[in-house]
Amino acid sequence: MLFFGGDYNPEQWPEEVWAQDVALMRQAGVTMVSLGVFAWSHVEPEEGRFTFGWLDRIMDRLHDGGIKVALATPTASPPPWFTSAHPEGLPVTADGVRLSHGSRDTYCVSAPAYRAAARTVAGKLAERYARHPALALWHVHNEYGTDCRCDLTAAAFRGWLRTKHGDLDALNEAWTTAFWSQRYSDWAQILPPRATQYLPNPAQVLDFRRFLSDELLGAFVEQRDLLRAANPDIPITTNFVQGGWVSVDHARWAAELDLVAVDHYPADAGDGAEAETAFGGDLARGWAAGQGGAWLLMETAPNLIYTPGRMHAKEPGRLTRHSLGYLARGSRGAMYFQWRQPRGGAELFHSALVPHAGPDSPVFREAVGLGRRLAALRDRVGGTVEARVAIGWDAPSWWALQGAGLPAADLDYLAAVQQAHRAFYRSGIATDFVFPGLDDLAARLPAYRVVVLPHLYLVSDEAADVLREFVAGGGHLVVGPLSGIADPAGRIRLGGYPGAFRDVLGVRVVEWRPLALGTEIPLDSGDRAIRWSERVETAGAQTLVRYAGDVLAGAPAITRNRFGAGSAWYLSPGLGDDALRRVLDQVAAEAGVRPVLAGLPPRVEAVRRGELLFLFNHGAEAVTIPLPGADPVTVPPGGVRTSGLARHWAGD
Amino acid sequence: MLFFGGDYNPEQWPEEVWAQDVALMRQAGVTMVSLGVFAWSHVEPEEGRFTFGWLDRIMDRLHDGGIKVALATPTASPPPWFTSAHPEGLPVTADGVRLSHGSRDTYCVSAPAYRAAARTVAGKLAERYARHPALALWHVHNEYGTDCRCDLTAAAFRGWLRTKHGDLDALNEAWTTAFWSQRYSDWAQILPPRATQYLPNPAQVLDFRRFLSDELLGAFVEQRDLLRAANPDIPITTNFVQGGWVSVDHARWAAELDLVAVDHYPADAGDGAEAETAFGGDLARGWAAGQGGAWLLMETAPNLIYTPGRMHAKEPGRLTRHSLGYLARGSRGAMYFQWRQPRGGAELFHSALVPHAGPDSPVFREAVGLGRRLAALRDRVGGTVEARVAIGWDAPSWWALQGAGLPAADLDYLAAVQQAHRAFYRSGIATDFVFPGLDDLAARLPAYRVVVLPHLYLVSDEAADVLREFVAGGGHLVVGPLSGIADPAGRIRLGGYPGAFRDVLGVRVVEWRPLALGTEIPLDSGDRAIRWSERVETAGAQTLVRYAGDVLAGAPAITRNRFGAGSAWYLSPGLGDDALRRVLDQVAAEAGVRPVLAGLPPRVEAVRRGELLFLFNHGAEAVTIPLPGADPVTVPPGGVRTSGLARHWAGD
Amino acid sequence: MLFFGGDYNPEQWPEEVWAQDVALMRQAGVTMVSLGVFAWSHVEPEEGRFTFGWLDRIMDRLHDGGIKVALATPTASPPPWFTSAHPEGLPVTADGVRLSHGSRDTYCVSAPAYRAAARTVAGKLAERYARHPALALWHVHNEYGTDCRCDLTAAAFRGWLRTKHGDLDALNEAWTTAFWSQRYSDWAQILPPRATQYLPNPAQVLDFRRFLSDELLGAFVEQRDLLRAANPDIPITTNFVQGGWVSVDHARWAAELDLVAVDHYPADAGDGAEAETAFGGDLARGWAAGQGGAWLLMETAPNLIYTPGRMHAKEPGRLTRHSLGYLARGSRGAMYFQWRQPRGGAELFHSALVPHAGPDSPVFREAVGLGRRLAALRDRVGGTVEARVAIGWDAPSWWALQGAGLPAADLDYLAAVQQAHRAFYRSGIATDFVFPGLDDLAARLPAYRVVVLPHLYLVSDEAADVLREFVAGGGHLVVGPLSGIADPAGRIRLGGYPGAFRDVLGVRVVEWRPLALGTEIPLDSGDRAIRWSERVETAGAQTLVRYAGDVLAGAPAITRNRFGAGSAWYLSPGLGDDALRRVLDQVAAEAGVRPVLAGLPPRVEAVRRGELLFLFNHGAEAVTIPLPGADPVTVPPGGVRTSGLARHWAGD
Repeated sequence: MLFFGGDYNPEQWPEEVWAQDVALMRQAGVTMVSLGVFAWSHVEPEEGRFTFGWLDRIMDRLHDGGIKVALATPTASPPPWFTSAHPEGLPVTADGVRLSHGSRDTYCVSAPAYRAAARTVAGKLAERYARHPALALWHVHNEYGTDCRCDLTAAAFRGWLRTKHGDLDALNEAWTTAFWSQRYSDWAQILPPRATQYLPNPAQVLDFRRFLSDELLGAFVEQRDLLRAANPDIPITTNFVQGGWVSVDHARWAAELDLVAVDHYPADAGDGAEAETAFGGDLARGWAAGQGGAWLLMETAPNLIYTPGRMHAKEPGRLTRHSLGYLARGSRGAMYFQWRQPRGGAELFHSALVPHAGPDSPVFREAVGLGRRLAALRDRVGGTVEARVAIGWDAPSWWALQGAGLPAADLDYLAAVQQAHRAFYRSGIATDFVFPGLDDLAARLPAYRVVVLPHLYLVSDEAADVLREFVAGGGHLVVGPLSGIADPAGRIRLGGYPGAFRDVLGVRVVEWRPLALGTEIPLDSGDRAIRWSERVETAGAQTLVRYAGDVLAGAPAITRNRFGAGSAWYLSPGLGDDALRRVLDQVAAEAGVRPVLAGLPPRVEAVRRGELLFLFNHGAEAVTIPLPGADPVTVPPGGVRTSGLARHWAGD
Repeated sequence: MLFFGGDYNPEQWPEEVWAQDVALMRQAGVTMVSLGVFAWSHVEPEEGRFTFGWLDRIMDRLHDGGIKVALATPTASPPPWFTSAHPEGLPVTADGVRLSHGSRDTYCVSAPAYRAAARTVAGKLAERYARHPALALWHVHNEYGTDCRCDLTAAAFRGWLRTKHGDLDALNEAWTTAFWSQRYSDWAQILPPRATQYLPNPAQVLDFRRFLSDELLGAFVEQRDLLRAANPDIPITTNFVQGGWVSVDHARWAAELDLVAVDHYPADAGDGAEAETAFGGDLARGWAAGQGGAWLLMETAPNLIYTPGRMHAKEPGRLTRHSLGYLARGSRGAMYFQWRQPRGGAELFHSALVPHAGPDSPVFREAVGLGRRLAALRDRVGGTVEARVAIGWDAPSWWALQGAGLPAADLDYLAAVQQAHRAFYRSGIATDFVFPGLDDLAARLPAYRVVVLPHLYLVSDEAADVLREFVAGGGHLVVGPLSGIADPAGRIRLGGYPGAFRDVLGVRVVEWRPLALGTEIPLDSGDRAIRWSERVETAGAQTLVRYAGDVLAGAPAITRNRFGAGSAWYLSPGLGDDALRRVLDQVAAEAGVRPVLAGLPPRVEAVRRGELLFLFNHGAEAVTIPLPGADPVTVPPGGVRTSGLARHWAGD
Repeated sequence: MLFFGGDYNPEQWPEEVWAQDVALMRQAGVTMVSLGVFAWSHVEPEEGRFTFGWLDRIMDRLHDGGIKVALATPTASPPPWFTSAHPEGLPVTADGVRLSHGSRDTYCVSAPAYRAAARTVAGKLAERYARHPALALWHVHNEYGTDCRCDLTAAAFRGWLRTKHGDLDALNEAWTTAFWSQRYSDWAQILPPRATQYLPNPAQVLDFRRFLSDELLGAFVEQRDLLRAANPDIPITTNFVQGGWVSVDHARWAAELDLVAVDHYPADAGDGAEAETAFGGDLARGWAAGQGGAWLLMETAPNLIYTPGRMHAKEPGRLTRHSLGYLARGSRGAMYFQWRQPRGGAELFHSALVPHAGPDSPVFREAVGLGRRLAALRDRVGGTVEARVAIGWDAPSWWALQGAGLPAADLDYLAAVQQAHRAFYRSGIATDFVFPGLDDLAARLPAYRVVVLPHLYLVSDEAADVLREFVAGGGHLVVGPLSGIADPAGRIRLGGYPGAFRDVLGVRVVEWRPLALGTEIPLDSGDRAIRWSERVETAGAQTLVRYAGDVLAGAPAITRNRFGAGSAWYLSPGLGDDALRRVLDQVAAEAGVRPVLAGLPPRVEAVRRGELLFLFNHGAEAVTIPLPGADPVTVPPGGVRTSGLARHWAGD
């Protein structure tokens, strides 16, 4: 089954609407809905009093309609009765402001009262619905991520630190507390990062973010175990949120889930949205590597793109293209936030399959068509995407580069990774993600010919060794600036950047020279360095491109080092999209990595999942695409076509 | 009498300055001053100890000089002794910060101690001065508006909510608390909007703003009743502040005042200031409809315009033009903040009639000339402005559009209303304001041929009915986007926007398509949609203008629906000033509404109040204006001329 | 000896690194290091337990290496044990947030527990090291400046106010508390400026800033006296920080120091850095007037310029040029933050003489060369710079112009002073600073022919008298706008701006007309007024330049008044750099002030200190400079040359 549906909130509507909902779901081909995501105050209106009648009725009604349910535990939004009775369960900001209820996510995950209440309501749901015939999936919580700096959090943080560091001497060493007289002489002195006079200790901030991810994961595992005990056959997930600020390390979490589920909201109204969709799907597939690369798009907006300050309505056909784009990259379907647009509440204009205008609306009509396509594809979609290129993703490096005291305030880890991904996306080359912070790195690398490391600021000795072996064994490694700088504690690797990769790259960087906005340095390749430059000394590497201006004129900019049977490229300058793509195309060519389909026109995208080829035309003109060993396919403007692949045809 | 004068703070000056003040006031023709606005610490230097001697002396001295007094109750700025003794009387921010004294407006209007202290000092003033011969007007408080989120406020808010909603079920329904599990099971759980984790509930915010307006009004009424009891012959006012952030619903307040008084500070140094002045005056006259349209400009800055980040000094003659502009639109005079520029304090550079430089200064000389003109006009000014066009104003819609979670973050209710007003202003068409949220709507509409509703987001069924009747009876209704969307609780009217006006407009909007800054869509009229577009379906209406680009190409943009004896126009796109003016000119022409004087050159403005015609020349060249049935009038650059009207001549 | 070295933090490194450090220091010619600046948690790891062994070892090792020590008291960063035990010793923001440890500067200087702990650790250091042979200088604390608004601070503030004002009536008068009903009837009502509802009282803010400077000075003096008692022969300093936000009035502090030490970080990556360096050095020399004009550059960044949001790496040779630039302006050497770049901590990318890359790096190599030059100059550098031009500097005027309620929000005192300085810098004219708020003004003025007062907003009657005498005696006074406006309490001098200088200038300003960004008014000189204009009336002064546009057309813009034997110039408009330089060049010419060397090409700078002439070539081409009575000197691009001066040659 392909999952098709969305968040469904019958508790917001009178029961007479429910019948219409199920009829419309059937009309649209909906196969599953997420139920109860924010229904805590409806299933437990007072502490210890549970009202499941309404939920029984809608579960049964959905089942009767042939619609499956991803039943949520509602713990992401405690009801006012809880936070009124347990104010210590509310989150506290770094400034010491205890937040109030009146929104969602108003919980402190370290508060015992919150954890107990969450276990209770999850346990009651498990008890009652674990064997309900409509139940297809448990959806624990929603977008885990609330940050809190209260004293209960401080206590939990200290416990986590004790486990990690063992004793205070080790912590003081890891955190370089000798800087600014911050040596801790008692565990009780250690606090979460709170408002302080000037720059905070970056190692403290980094460990706090790791702790928070683990602490939230602990809350998930607690619920998961309750649900699993009630019926071991129902898979369990929680929806990961992708975006510019993420509290948890999804790569680490994935192993604890039965199915990786992702909420993905592109933010660019133009072509960027398609590249973002591809990025989101590929990254989700990376997290799902342990589950064979299959994951589920749990939320996206049917008919809007949240651009900064403005909801952009999608153009006709774009809902379909995006949805099939996720599918092509490994999703087990397409779920949306949300089924029916609410009449009130904080997100009353968030898009829905059934908008305020009702089913007589463009979005519902497109949804009906999409449902039909998904039904037709149901038996043809399988397997996963096979890629020979992988990009490194590392949440702690991201967090570290969000700190203060860095050489440039606008370093943007996410943008750097997305830019590398976009280069391959535009060249039509399938791309995976690997996680240098995880133990499975050595196991995963052999599948790839090219590995790219953008801004991999933190790296362990072990991961650096694995990457070195990858090159020695014939791989092609591409290292961007700000990679390999520090150990996992954030301590600089001395002797010249990028410490961890100096030997494999055959270079030594003796000086960073960030470039001001509007400043650029010509390269002798004809491209330009923007945002970033460095004084690089080679130590064995071949210089491919040199800086051709500024005080760096003549110095190496892009280098390649033959190392064992492979090559290691160093890209010191900040590059624009086109310049980066040129370099990565060259790496791919040297590595023998080819696009899925060569010679596609701009804005046409080909993705292969298993034996199915997806052809997306994001442009405004029809295109006809020749296929090897098959008839050409014409894709209308804004359209998508799929084609089965002859067994003998493959992208590599 | 025309009131001419300003805030006068003798308590800031040694008594030897007072004699000079009165002499200068007489020289300038000052007729009234506002006294005691911030004098609490001078009339009650310690709790319960009153020192009226100084006030007696200055009241007597002013009376001897023939100058009337608008005596203020000083409750807008409690003295340090009060807030030190009653810290619970200080306001608390949404973050929980209790503010300190050290500025003005440091009160919580829901704190019993503050209310009691305010009653005491107001009562003492009433007792002592209610029959003083200089007293012409009571000026209660100053610019009511302080926001507080403390626990005392929470308690008052709950009381107000109980009265409004009756029971918790009704409140939960009105606030759509089913969204995000916010169902309240006990009144005690309800809080003012405070810092919370993510988006707040917009209905809670909206009710809080209504509550705050009512709570502040309660404080006003309490003082008013005390003052009225002391001498029922003295009219009572409080000064309404116009601006970008206003805490109270002046339209509702107006009924409780004997005289609407307005503080108005234009913010545009260029031509915009004149349009703002017209807007401010017309809106004030709308509030004063219950008092025959006569109101009082209580404050403006004599010689500066507060542009963002910078005080712009007015050009010579502009003080006069602005002042007579307010007069022409119904003001009973021109009062300023302030008489004498202070030597110190937080606003030491705020403009005054007597500046730091003293009376030997351009501003004082212009004030003297203005005083002379006002004296000459005293017996000729009367009646009010008669308009056939009205614009709808609704403070709750404004507040609702200041929330989070809207389709665009830069929706600007005030700008939309001002833009509509500016279009008529530039076409020389007299414009009133009506208030769709008030009960007098049905009574007021018959006076108008055209009613324009910009961004009337909230509308009740009753008001929608009245507006429908207006059209059915022959009126011309113009509805802009984001009108009629929700009921007064903020719940969306389902089935297609603009729910409340779908039938009268004969359209159905199935999708909003906000436009990014810098993006525009051509219309087939030659104009362009900016900021906003929509997918409109007609259901009876005639399409006058179509979108001519983007995915909306060919779809209706501007429509007109014949409904009963009238017409209802729907303007879906965001329009620039010129484009909107073209449409509204067409509506006015169809409705037979003419300008006060046709064919005026740019930057020349004609306003008729009663039998007096005001001609303003905001340009740099003299203009000669032909008048029907009278000699032409030449207005010098930057000048103003008035002309009596032959009885038989009328603007309509 | 010339001091050459930097902050050295051996506590951040294992002892095996220390030997390498000393060897590298010797290689670089380091003569002194600042030790222990943030070492509190290492010298006193628990309350009352002192661990001096490590410090003994490094002091001895440095002594053995021939390197002197500026030993710091570590009180700028209390250890976590202190703030955990004494939370009242943490600073509190104006919003009431008590900050946490986890950074530096987390102290409240008014907290008795903090002061006691600071005295204890300083006393122990004094006791142990006051006679150590390596000790050359005591370095008290670091960059005094932490602001706190807690209740302990409030109590101290009240004590300071009682001393200053005597009684509440005087305070109420000085603070104009009659404005907005802020009259204080009990000392206990007075608070530091805290979050309040609207604009604060500027006089309260100003007195608080004076108090804070004095309160911090008290803490310094307390330590100084302890150190001096232990060995009266060791000079004592604390490092003054220059920058955009400074809490203390360095001019007042200087008298309490044996040696003025300055931390200076230019912020402009372009040519501006050189002008900033000159400004920083000249201002430091001004503070050091009581010590013969010799001061010490205690910190600058070896290889970076902190531009907004980005660390700019210096170009080769720039470290040397900047360092010799400070030396030429009176510094007793060149010290840096820092010796060795740290592996972790909040400033892990702050520049160092030994960077992460190690000694095999451009910065260390340049440091070695610089060390050699300093050694060669050691016996030739002496005396001070002699200037005939002085600019007025007044920290309270700066603070006053940072307030709210001013006629323009972007008034920038520092920028105005720097602009005046830059004009003379670019003309090659040596410039001093004088301090109109200090008692030594009368004693210092006779050395000068020209005195310039940019934005000297506050001025006492006494200082105004001294300046008047200066002109009467033949001096040339240049007054810019916003000078002489208020008395030291911030009360406006009435009757026309600039009240204190109306008579000496022979002008009266009746109106300020701030100009919006992008607006400008032509002057009849061909220059333009930007940002600021005024309506000026002359009263004896000669009009040199008139406004030639806007409503000011024809009105005086720049005037000169013959007064006694001298002249007083008034510059009413805001001017661009070139326009201001033209005016100041004219003043200098009339005053007979000449540049150090006439006719230098652009970007070439000549500074004379004692008998040594420094020639800086900031340009990219070699220049050959003719010298009077000596051979011409060729300075390579980016280079510096020095030349001894024939006795008979002098710049004036």
